Amino acid sequence: MSHVVVRSDAGPPPEAVKRLGELGVATVHEAQGRTGLLSHRLRPIYPGARIAGRAVTVSAQPGDNLMIHAAVEQTRPGDVLVVTFTSPTTDGAFGELLATSLRARGVLGLVIEAGCRDVVELTAMRFPVWSRAVSAQGTVKASPGSVNVPIVIAGAYVRPGDAIVADDDGVVVVASQRAAAVATAAAARVAKEEEKRRQLSDGVLGLDLYGLRPLLERLGVRYVDATDDGRTG
Amino acid sequence: MSHVVVRSDAGPPPEAVKRLGELGVATVHEAQGRTGLLSHRLRPIYPGARIAGRAVTVSAQPGDNLMIHAAVEQTRPGDVLVVTFTSPTTDGAFGELLATSLRARGVLGLVIEAGCRDVVELTAMRFPVWSRAVSAQGTVKASPGSVNVPIVIAGAYVRPGDAIVADDDGVVVVASQRAAAVATAAAARVAKEEEKRRQLSDGVLGLDLYGLRPLLERLGVRYVDATDDGRTG
Amino acid sequence: MSHVVVRSDAGPPPEAVKRLGELGVATVHEAQGRTGLLSHRLRPIYPGARIAGRAVTVSAQPGDNLMIHAAVEQTRPGDVLVVTFTSPTTDGAFGELLATSLRARGVLGLVIEAGCRDVVELTAMRFPVWSRAVSAQGTVKASPGSVNVPIVIAGAYVRPGDAIVADDDGVVVVASQRAAAVATAAAARVAKEEEKRRQLSDGVLGLDLYGLRPLLERLGVRYVDATDDGRTG
Amino acid sequence: MSHVVVRSDAGPPPEAVKRLGELGVATVHEAQGRTGLLSHRLRPIYPGARIAGRAVTVSAQPGDNLMIHAAVEQTRPGDVLVVTFTSPTTDGAFGELLATSLRARGVLGLVIEAGCRDVVELTAMRFPVWSRAVSAQGTVKASPGSVNVPIVIAGAYVRPGDAIVADDDGVVVVASQRAAAVATAAAARVAKEEEKRRQLSDGVLGLDLYGLRPLLERLGVRYVDATDDGRTG
Amino acid sequence: MSHVVVRSDAGPPPEAVKRLGELGVATVHEAQGRTGLLSHRLRPIYPGARIAGRAVTVSAQPGDNLMIHAAVEQTRPGDVLVVTFTSPTTDGAFGELLATSLRARGVLGLVIEAGCRDVVELTAMRFPVWSRAVSAQGTVKASPGSVNVPIVIAGAYVRPGDAIVADDDGVVVVASQRAAAVATAAAARVAKEEEKRRQLSDGVLGLDLYGLRPLLERLGVRYVDATDDGRTG
Amino acid sequence: MSHVVVRSDAGPPPEAVKRLGELGVATVHEAQGRTGLLSHRLRPIYPGARIAGRAVTVSAQPGDNLMIHAAVEQTRPGDVLVVTFTSPTTDGAFGELLATSLRARGVLGLVIEAGCRDVVELTAMRFPVWSRAVSAQGTVKASPGSVNVPIVIAGAYVRPGDAIVADDDGVVVVASQRAAAVATAAAARVAKEEEKRRQLSDGVLGLDLYGLRPLLERLGVRYVDATDDGRTG
Repeated sequence: MSHVVVRSDAGPPPEAVKRLGELGVATVHEAQGRTGLLSHRLRPIYPGARIAGRAVTVSAQPGDNLMIHAAVEQTRPGDVLVVTFTSPTTDGAFGELLATSLRARGVLGLVIEAGCRDVVELTAMRFPVWSRAVSAQGTVKASPGSVNVPIVIAGAYVRPGDAIVADDDGVVVVASQRAAAVATAAAARVAKEEEKRRQLSDGVLGLDLYGLRPLLERLGVRYVDATDDGRTG
Repeated sequence: MSHVVVRSDAGPPPEAVKRLGELGVATVHEAQGRTGLLSHRLRPIYPGARIAGRAVTVSAQPGDNLMIHAAVEQTRPGDVLVVTFTSPTTDGAFGELLATSLRARGVLGLVIEAGCRDVVELTAMRFPVWSRAVSAQGTVKASPGSVNVPIVIAGAYVRPGDAIVADDDGVVVVASQRAAAVATAAAARVAKEEEKRRQLSDGVLGLDLYGLRPLLERLGVRYVDATDDGRTG
Repeated sequence: MSHVVVRSDAGPPPEAVKRLGELGVATVHEAQGRTGLLSHRLRPIYPGARIAGRAVTVSAQPGDNLMIHAAVEQTRPGDVLVVTFTSPTTDGAFGELLATSLRARGVLGLVIEAGCRDVVELTAMRFPVWSRAVSAQGTVKASPGSVNVPIVIAGAYVRPGDAIVADDDGVVVVASQRAAAVATAAAARVAKEEEKRRQLSDGVLGLDLYGLRPLLERLGVRYVDATDDGRTG
Repeated sequence: MSHVVVRSDAGPPPEAVKRLGELGVATVHEAQGRTGLLSHRLRPIYPGARIAGRAVTVSAQPGDNLMIHAAVEQTRPGDVLVVTFTSPTTDGAFGELLATSLRARGVLGLVIEAGCRDVVELTAMRFPVWSRAVSAQGTVKASPGSVNVPIVIAGAYVRPGDAIVADDDGVVVVASQRAAAVATAAAARVAKEEEKRRQLSDGVLGLDLYGLRPLLERLGVRYVDATDDGRTG
Repeated sequence: MSHVVVRSDAGPPPEAVKRLGELGVATVHEAQGRTGLLSHRLRPIYPGARIAGRAVTVSAQPGDNLMIHAAVEQTRPGDVLVVTFTSPTTDGAFGELLATSLRARGVLGLVIEAGCRDVVELTAMRFPVWSRAVSAQGTVKASPGSVNVPIVIAGAYVRPGDAIVADDDGVVVVASQRAAAVATAAAARVAKEEEKRRQLSDGVLGLDLYGLRPLLERLGVRYVDATDDGRTG
Repeated sequence: MSHVVVRSDAGPPPEAVKRLGELGVATVHEAQGRTGLLSHRLRPIYPGARIAGRAVTVSAQPGDNLMIHAAVEQTRPGDVLVVTFTSPTTDGAFGELLATSLRARGVLGLVIEAGCRDVVELTAMRFPVWSRAVSAQGTVKASPGSVNVPIVIAGAYVRPGDAIVADDDGVVVVASQRAAAVATAAAARVAKEEEKRRQLSDGVLGLDLYGLRPLLERLGVRYVDATDDGRTG
């Protein structure tokens, strides 16, 4: 297989990325038809971070972070580094020095299908990482891979230049050309949720708000009273 | 299979539930003979919450939260919603809007054998959830299930009206009719632990406090001195 | 199999242990050639703790913490208790009372290939535990085992008297006789990292700092420009 | 908790059990409304076995098979032993000697939420076991438990005297009092499937056989032709 | 999200597919640069099957096999059905009746990121399935999805019309347009392996056959003699 | 870390190894006090193999089988290759060509904490492998490691020259110097089991054969009769 580092300026409209970040993962995921979510096995190393940015993708060998170094050069401010591996690994392929380098270039955070280390330092720096493990296991810089090629990571397909949104709920990818439309749809969704939230808070039931009672009846769900011992007769 | 929503007022004595909540999961679990614990795979979405309440149970389809909506109507203040699924799932079947609805009814929290989303908002609301994953994966409202029937969740058998206690150590179920007795036994246990804690803090060894030395001898455990290199001869 | 409790004073030089603790897990692990790391499945029960101490080892039966009680007597100030089990278990074999006892003896923390409970109380006490689960599941005091014998825990081989370093990145073991040398190597590594950090922070790329460009070329990694749609031609 | 061995003659009608065994797990599970299936993590130690019998249940401690020995005495010809543990374990709590004892009493097989060993000998004997692991890890005979009490095993609730059906597809439990009705429903299902099988074999599509085309349309699934490169436009 | 069923005739050259099937998964995976392998969690339901065919892809909802029925109509002789789900599931979404339908259309086998049931019947039919579980858990026919769209399955990206090769070593995907070249490369690889096999069988060491001794030396691997107790000095 | 290939002739007495192989894993594991068992996650690639031999150990990098090639030269007839990795991996680091090489040297089989591929060919050759996965994922020959050093594999500590026994029940290690004594103890155990088997086959209960009734009574296990509905009163 030929390994390449692709220089690419492609990306979603910055304004759309900004809006996606304000809306958050769950809303964006819903707004694009419940697609694009990465597996929940990727978790943030500390709570409370939320980022949205342009994906710079990396495909690397397990136990090796050479290509992450190669990828740094391809990043620009507002990017999110998205790193997958050619087979499963939990090694700590990323730590504080790489974060220092990425921060210097304006990169917002990292999504990685491997381990992460130096989590105390990364937390202190407020450099957010979504990883599948926290592991101090060191890696080498010896094997080839690719930068800015389409990858599969945590069950999702990510192309360089796609929009990445990540927060405590997880990580979602939005195709570059759909970013603006998804942001608009997500904003509309939020607006509608505000009214729903008010009604639910006032005690209106979801059964009524969403009109679910006829559905329950159609599905044959029966309402019965408990017998004396608290169970059905 | 017939699906039912059971209207039930049954529950443990509120005074017993209150005491169980003050005692916590580990103590209650011990006090009822080390039974009733749900699997540790259910974890709180934020640290520090502790609740105790009457179980309203739900059996739902994977990827579907229709029956959670149906269950809301069956809750009353002081309840805990306990939701299982007919096959394994990590989808985010619960989020902030449902929490708003449950909060409006005085429900204390949620125990769910699936994923949970909107964890930032739920944490801000202090609405505690014990779930097997944090996942933004959305669900539909399309499939029938049951409310207030006996369920198996995370390896435990829970009947509607049972007492549920949940804190950072996990989740335990106490049968409704045993709640008062268990609370009394747990309180007695705590009283005894206080004295033990004082002695252990003073340097008394558990070997002596619990009288374990004869047991070690009977089990054939020998005491030996290390050889010079720090190992046994 | 004969079960023994070994009385042992062996341990690494205290000065070396102190330095290892200041350096942290990731650095120590690197400094000894990327060896000695315990599996990342052992996680701290609260963030922010870092300890280093002399290992007192325990081999116990699943569901039984008798030998932890036996081990307490063999500890002295500055020790770390390291507990493995003869087969996989997640039961909560350790809690607040045992921590009170260990604290009274000056033990710094616990590393355990099982569950831990009373995490609220342990966090309040600031008694750190690295465990594979948080579980309230209680254990008995009935089965023999050994104290201060070599053990395998979480994929690592630990001898009594070895140095243990644990922080948010995980747990690493350093052979007693290597502790001083590893501490020195780790300190040297930290000194070098400081300069690297400064350069990376100034925007120098790892590719240049580590001289990786010739390696990429030798490995056949090609640089290409993206075509108009953001992919390679 | 008090531990009991319950002497019980209760069980489903033998004729119903016999019919359930002929129908198999998948059919029985469907016929009772897709309920009662144990988790797929229980797998047969060799392919090709199928059994159906009356459940004798056991609740035991991890690493301990004392209560399996106690249970043997409570079995009679045509029974299936169903063994769960109070916390997760993969130890090999069952082997050839226990199988010899059960075979002497006419027991048909074992379902166990733990490990199994002596699989070569058990296969040669054709004594089928559904377990969560094959493991030689030995166990002790030291801890109390119960026989013929309701248990939770692999996510299912099993009462003594329920019918158990097990084959290469897994294990399903049928409540004793429902066994005859489920067997009848399952047989009806099989009869209908025969006709479906014939039609499908003749090339009739499930879309037509089950009348699914209007559903697809109602769900908004559109039919489109691939563009030249094999994808949608 | 819009759901579509794409009618597509695209596929790799039949001659290339035939050759890929003769070469097997490991060889094909190597020949295309160690890419395209699906996760090893997909396992064959019986040993000894090997198939190669054109992929018809399906994206379905967990617990629902409606879209598999829709996909049947899009298959033709020599195809392999490749089914993924929008979130993790182990439900038995495929069984003997669907296999009967696929067999009637000349489909060679199934690759599915879910469970499979009726394994006795499927084995008797010699209809091979690669699945992540064997599970009798039934599914419904209620939710929309897509057929013949690009999917991610078990960590790999599969487009409709790609070549799929599956045997006891796993499942690999080959892009349609690369199929002929990969088959040629794989055949060349096999030819070379034959000579290697002969030499290794004659006692020639891989160290010499592949010229690895200089590499070991360059990597600093030292050869030493064991001391008397069988360990290094 | 320095990497070494240790030339070593040390090993257990061949006669002892031969006897261990006749006795099998479960018996040997019991005879040495229930120690030495490797995790059950290592499974044979085909059923029915049983081997016993001298361990030649390998510590390798994930995704790299260079050191397996280096180890071949250190083997002699009757050996078993035992390969661990410095961090978790499931890559297929071993296949038919390496087996051909090992077979040429009289090596009996392989135990590996990684994946294995070419399982069809290995089965045809009857070259047994115990691995944690079947995976076609290829590896490179690029990274240093060690041969014939003590290793941890699947939770067990194995020194070069130890005896390895492997069959369908798993893998157990016996320290070289203990091999003869363990073989003798295991043979004695088998002799006693023969008489037990006969009695159990004749219907004698384990409760009586092992004298367990007083233990049950001492543990407080009560015998009760089921009430009419098959449960305890």
